Amino acid sequence: MQINRQRLLNDIEKYSLYGRDERGGITRPAFSEPDMQVRELFIKELKDLGLKVSVDPIANIWGKRKGKGEMNGTIVIGSHLDTVPNGGKYDGALGVLIAKEVVVTLIENKIELQHDLEIVSFTAEESNDFGFSTLGSKTFAGKLTEEELIHASDSQGTLLKDAVRYAGGDLYKLDEMVKDRREKKAYVEIHIEQGKRLESNHLSVGIVEDMVGVYRTRVKVKGEANHSGTTMMAHRSDALAAASEMVLAVEKICCADETDLVGTVGQLSVEPNAVNVVPGEVNFVAEIRSEDEARMDHVINLIEENWKRILNARGVTMEQNLMVKQKPIPMDEDIVTIFRETADELSEPYTVFPSMAVHDAAHMASLSKACMIFVKSINGRSHCPEEYSKPEDIEKAANILLNGVINIDKVLSKEARPIID
Amino acid sequence: MQINRQRLLNDIEKYSLYGRDERGGITRPAFSEPDMQVRELFIKELKDLGLKVSVDPIANIWGKRKGKGEMNGTIVIGSHLDTVPNGGKYDGALGVLIAKEVVVTLIENKIELQHDLEIVSFTAEESNDFGFSTLGSKTFAGKLTEEELIHASDSQGTLLKDAVRYAGGDLYKLDEMVKDRREKKAYVEIHIEQGKRLESNHLSVGIVEDMVGVYRTRVKVKGEANHSGTTMMAHRSDALAAASEMVLAVEKICCADETDLVGTVGQLSVEPNAVNVVPGEVNFVAEIRSEDEARMDHVINLIEENWKRILNARGVTMEQNLMVKQKPIPMDEDIVTIFRETADELSEPYTVFPSMAVHDAAHMASLSKACMIFVKSINGRSHCPEEYSKPEDIEKAANILLNGVINIDKVLSKEARPIID
Repeated sequence: MQINRQRLLNDIEKYSLYGRDERGGITRPAFSEPDMQVRELFIKELKDLGLKVSVDPIANIWGKRKGKGEMNGTIVIGSHLDTVPNGGKYDGALGVLIAKEVVVTLIENKIELQHDLEIVSFTAEESNDFGFSTLGSKTFAGKLTEEELIHASDSQGTLLKDAVRYAGGDLYKLDEMVKDRREKKAYVEIHIEQGKRLESNHLSVGIVEDMVGVYRTRVKVKGEANHSGTTMMAHRSDALAAASEMVLAVEKICCADETDLVGTVGQLSVEPNAVNVVPGEVNFVAEIRSEDEARMDHVINLIEENWKRILNARGVTMEQNLMVKQKPIPMDEDIVTIFRETADELSEPYTVFPSMAVHDAAHMASLSKACMIFVKSINGRSHCPEEYSKPEDIEKAANILLNGVINIDKVLSKEARPIID
Repeated sequence: MQINRQRLLNDIEKYSLYGRDERGGITRPAFSEPDMQVRELFIKELKDLGLKVSVDPIANIWGKRKGKGEMNGTIVIGSHLDTVPNGGKYDGALGVLIAKEVVVTLIENKIELQHDLEIVSFTAEESNDFGFSTLGSKTFAGKLTEEELIHASDSQGTLLKDAVRYAGGDLYKLDEMVKDRREKKAYVEIHIEQGKRLESNHLSVGIVEDMVGVYRTRVKVKGEANHSGTTMMAHRSDALAAASEMVLAVEKICCADETDLVGTVGQLSVEPNAVNVVPGEVNFVAEIRSEDEARMDHVINLIEENWKRILNARGVTMEQNLMVKQKPIPMDEDIVTIFRETADELSEPYTVFPSMAVHDAAHMASLSKACMIFVKSINGRSHCPEEYSKPEDIEKAANILLNGVINIDKVLSKEARPIID
């Protein structure tokens, strides 16, 4: 069985009109006017398919297609419809629209699953002005509480609770999700890779076996601000020169690592930042990501030892503050195996690799069997108007999901006892 | 003959009360209320000494003690009374107050020079909110025109012409300075060193033979912004990692130079500057200072070749824009010789070296014989409350100026023809 490629591509184009901006990208952050419009469209389309639509207390949109009623629990497929400012057509929407296409194809082919099948569009997956990312899935998984959310506001002073209510949710009713949470048996999300690994290996799709752990540390390097003319080279404690060595140490150590581990200094600022003053202080954030916790710890140690040598040699000091230390999250082995077998059945080459970004699947993994399928990104671009995945690659991923969902339904049915009223 | 150390120290303390701030420093930027008050005090004190006081069109304050009337032209001594925000007691005021002490000592000792002797306090020497530094001396030297100054305003919208008028000047009368400019025969300025060269060599004073050339280039490093997780190390064009190597190249090449040349990257910013984005662009300013123009050009070439190698190896690009290229300015050889001989007469050890900062003397050098004397800075600190020079070092510098001025008067009288009415 195959999805309808043209219908899916038309759908992607249609949804990409919501929030189209003058810079050629899509600006559809959560709770914005374009986001509200696209939510309305999506709900209407799910209802038109005959699905049972609900908006949960954090405003995630769910559309359920009843199964034969033989098995408890639901299989969930989806992603998110919000975008970053000036983002692309695919990050988020692709996973939601493929999920919809899968359901349409099943309906057309009159295929009934033993489990209920649900499409989800999670609220506010992207980092947003309220200070959260993966807001909808994280809250659904019970990792964000009413207390943590109720006073949150954006830079305009809008309260998150009002934005959520505007989208059909209600932060005072988060407890109602406890029951829903228990019924989810599996979650599968298709997403663009946002990197170049598939492209480099001439592959259309990859199956995600782990979601990386993320470590972030905030570093303050303290030298001595001084006149750039009168302070001889030998008399300086230049915080920027020290920080530059530290940045390069992160790069060198991470490049030398032979796994998919990555390390980045993305944020850095200089004090007093004047052309004629030797920098007295530099603040930066270093991030390490790896699917292998032990490997990550080893690299963090190497970097920190290296930093200490740099600082000692220069006579400057640092303060370090841990911002994030999130362990790698394994995807479900059974579902990974089902997708490997499905890809083999379809004679589609693939790789199995970690996701280097955190997605809604990270949170769904805490309450159900979860897995992701990545589609090749051209030039690895994402979060920009140049974000692109080819129609043939999208089609392959969609067919793997379609057939994979049927296989998941079968396997989970064998494993579990059927409903006995 | 000797100046009165205690009187001078009392004067330094008295003037340091103007603009004293809660951070322990002195905040007396040009045209501020404390600056206006200290100008008023200074004018009153000059008048009380019987000097002929004038405020020129850029609001520089001049106090003239007539000589015997035998020689044309004036010998000028002074510096500036404005400070940086939260600066120290010495940067600027020291040179003005020693000049005043020299005149007081000459008056007390009934010493009449053959030339007129003038004290000057230049307007707005420090970089200020109007976008100028060494404003008073630069304008006096005819290097800033009415057209360049008349529309200048600060961040509050105050027009420079109004600020100058408030201080007693008039930007529409700059032409009146042409005649005054021609009568200046010599200019000598005492200033704190603002570095550690004197301290390292256990010397109280240094005689300045050159003012450094300054080269500044603005560099934009262009890599590719990308997701910090999904972009593998091998697929990155990290603008910050490239810039870090470039910063270290500046440091390394300048450290390897065996002259007093210095190089600094003091200003640097990262785009988009997010913890989870590989930096796509870095902007920085590199500065090189040297008393030796050929040496400076050589080092600039070395650095730029090095940068190109770094960029090529990384596949990132740069744009470079020249901000400043100011040649070194030699001080007057005759005056340097006079001060060497004066220091020898006083049995005071000294060194002869370049000034690594630009001072009012740089502009006075374009219209008269100019020279500077530096006083040891403790720990090389300046532009901060910790700025300090010891009383004994200040006294030595003041006595060298006192006796040096007498010697300059003699030497210039021998060289020039006396006035014949």
